[in-house]
Amino acid sequence: MLTIGVDVGGTKVAAGLVDEKGTIVRRTRRPTPSASPDDVEDVIAACVTELAAGVEVEAVGIGAAGFVTADRSTVLVAPNLSWRDEPLRDDVAARVGLPCVVENDANAAAWGEYRFGAGRGEDFLVVVTVGTGIGGGVVLDGALQRGRSGLGAEVGHMQVVPGGRRCGCGQRGCWEQYCSGRALLLEAREIAGVQREHGRRLLELGGGRIEGIEAVEVTQAAREGDPAALECFEVIGGWLGQGMADLAAVLDPGAFVLGGGVSDAGELLLDPVRRTFAERLTGTGNRPLAQVLLAELGNDAGIVGAADLARHR
Amino acid sequence: MLTIGVDVGGTKVAAGLVDEKGTIVRRTRRPTPSASPDDVEDVIAACVTELAAGVEVEAVGIGAAGFVTADRSTVLVAPNLSWRDEPLRDDVAARVGLPCVVENDANAAAWGEYRFGAGRGEDFLVVVTVGTGIGGGVVLDGALQRGRSGLGAEVGHMQVVPGGRRCGCGQRGCWEQYCSGRALLLEAREIAGVQREHGRRLLELGGGRIEGIEAVEVTQAAREGDPAALECFEVIGGWLGQGMADLAAVLDPGAFVLGGGVSDAGELLLDPVRRTFAERLTGTGNRPLAQVLLAELGNDAGIVGAADLARHR
Repeated sequence: MLTIGVDVGGTKVAAGLVDEKGTIVRRTRRPTPSASPDDVEDVIAACVTELAAGVEVEAVGIGAAGFVTADRSTVLVAPNLSWRDEPLRDDVAARVGLPCVVENDANAAAWGEYRFGAGRGEDFLVVVTVGTGIGGGVVLDGALQRGRSGLGAEVGHMQVVPGGRRCGCGQRGCWEQYCSGRALLLEAREIAGVQREHGRRLLELGGGRIEGIEAVEVTQAAREGDPAALECFEVIGGWLGQGMADLAAVLDPGAFVLGGGVSDAGELLLDPVRRTFAERLTGTGNRPLAQVLLAELGNDAGIVGAADLARHR
Repeated sequence: MLTIGVDVGGTKVAAGLVDEKGTIVRRTRRPTPSASPDDVEDVIAACVTELAAGVEVEAVGIGAAGFVTADRSTVLVAPNLSWRDEPLRDDVAARVGLPCVVENDANAAAWGEYRFGAGRGEDFLVVVTVGTGIGGGVVLDGALQRGRSGLGAEVGHMQVVPGGRRCGCGQRGCWEQYCSGRALLLEAREIAGVQREHGRRLLELGGGRIEGIEAVEVTQAAREGDPAALECFEVIGGWLGQGMADLAAVLDPGAFVLGGGVSDAGELLLDPVRRTFAERLTGTGNRPLAQVLLAELGNDAGIVGAADLARHR
């Protein structure tokens, strides 16, 4: 039986018709309307109706970028969608006439990687998605851990630097401020600004302007072997490894799966990550080291995970 | 049916005969022999034999201060007992002729508080035991979370200060170096050493010597309203609240239970803890706040928890 997974982000709604092996057999996407929650729900329903045409669909899973309640019905807060206490599950179910479940988008993506991606077979798994911020998902003993209120696995908001950089969440020093696309740019632009010779290649790739340096330029320079760009990945990878060591102290997973835009840099990032993780883990040397793997499903993880959660609702 | 819980620490072995309601109906304790693991196992067996005299016992649960494998058979490392790869479960089972399970002592204590103490009824629970260090235990959805290798819930070894104070685990900046009996003393002695007027009462209680100030003096001075001593609890309680906010970001528990010697200070500690936790939690204001409770079972938590784990082995 087929299910549908919907990934609702701030800019687009991506959806897929998914079989029981996690294969997306049909897909669609539309821009996220910026207006009311009602409009977004209409777009979700339109995607579902399009995908369900001519086939039998069992249920719909929706991954949304926000706090989702433990009963998987309601989005408490979704900053990018300006939602508050939005009863998404029932509203969409009423529109499409199918059972729905709602899940935090990072949790849905983590579940996708656990069931069909890099994490399959590892029942103790932490997925860390490093993009503009850090998303996380935690699977322990084969169960997605959502916490008492459904708000767990917000790993990007562990404090790693007391009184450190401001975070969009209102706190300071959150992990995602030190390990994200934005943090990579902060490093690169700082070098280009204050160490002109060291940052020469970065500045050149930025068209001579510090603000012209974007993540793609840092990755390109690092691939060329530019020491300044490699240093940027060393710093960001170091923070990633440190936060993973903190998570491993608490959760003791068998593997970490790393996804998101920053992880596209592959070994440039993985090398400092693995090194720092192994160095900073408490009890290192007296315990098995968790594997560090790259995500396999890319942007499809959320769709595939949400569809599978709908199947096992 | 009765089970026996044994709490094996660096200085003493404490054991109890426990009924299905978590009541210790008979108890015993002996000094921990400092010599070989064999001698410690003999002492555990002697405690069990003494408690089991004349009654029918179903199983034995042993809580030990060390890394315990996921199959709950073997102590990988126990610094205070100089154990390495010690097959404790089978060695003790052979001596006493009863089924055994081995658990990390902090996990066993957390399970005790969950089943019969301050945490009963809350299926998403984090127990933080603040003594000379920090021990932890995590219950999610009613299950004790031990991690892939049995080494989870080592919450005291999350890094809270990059490059901070050295820790016995080999790392730097671990939570327990900022929030423990030792950290409280560091604060009090620093004040007494460099702010003589501010620290006058602390120094007086220490018999005029900085090294004479112990935790009991800091608590006494704080109860008298001494500003310097209150400041010490403010600092330690602040770190406790911050670390709990970090754990809540990841685990989203419904309650924290605080135990251990430092928590004997009660409201002196709880006030700054609750305040900092509520301030520092990511998404605060948009989510329910976990309850912050004091442990109820004291030093019996480990015995009661180990006995119950043996019952449900």
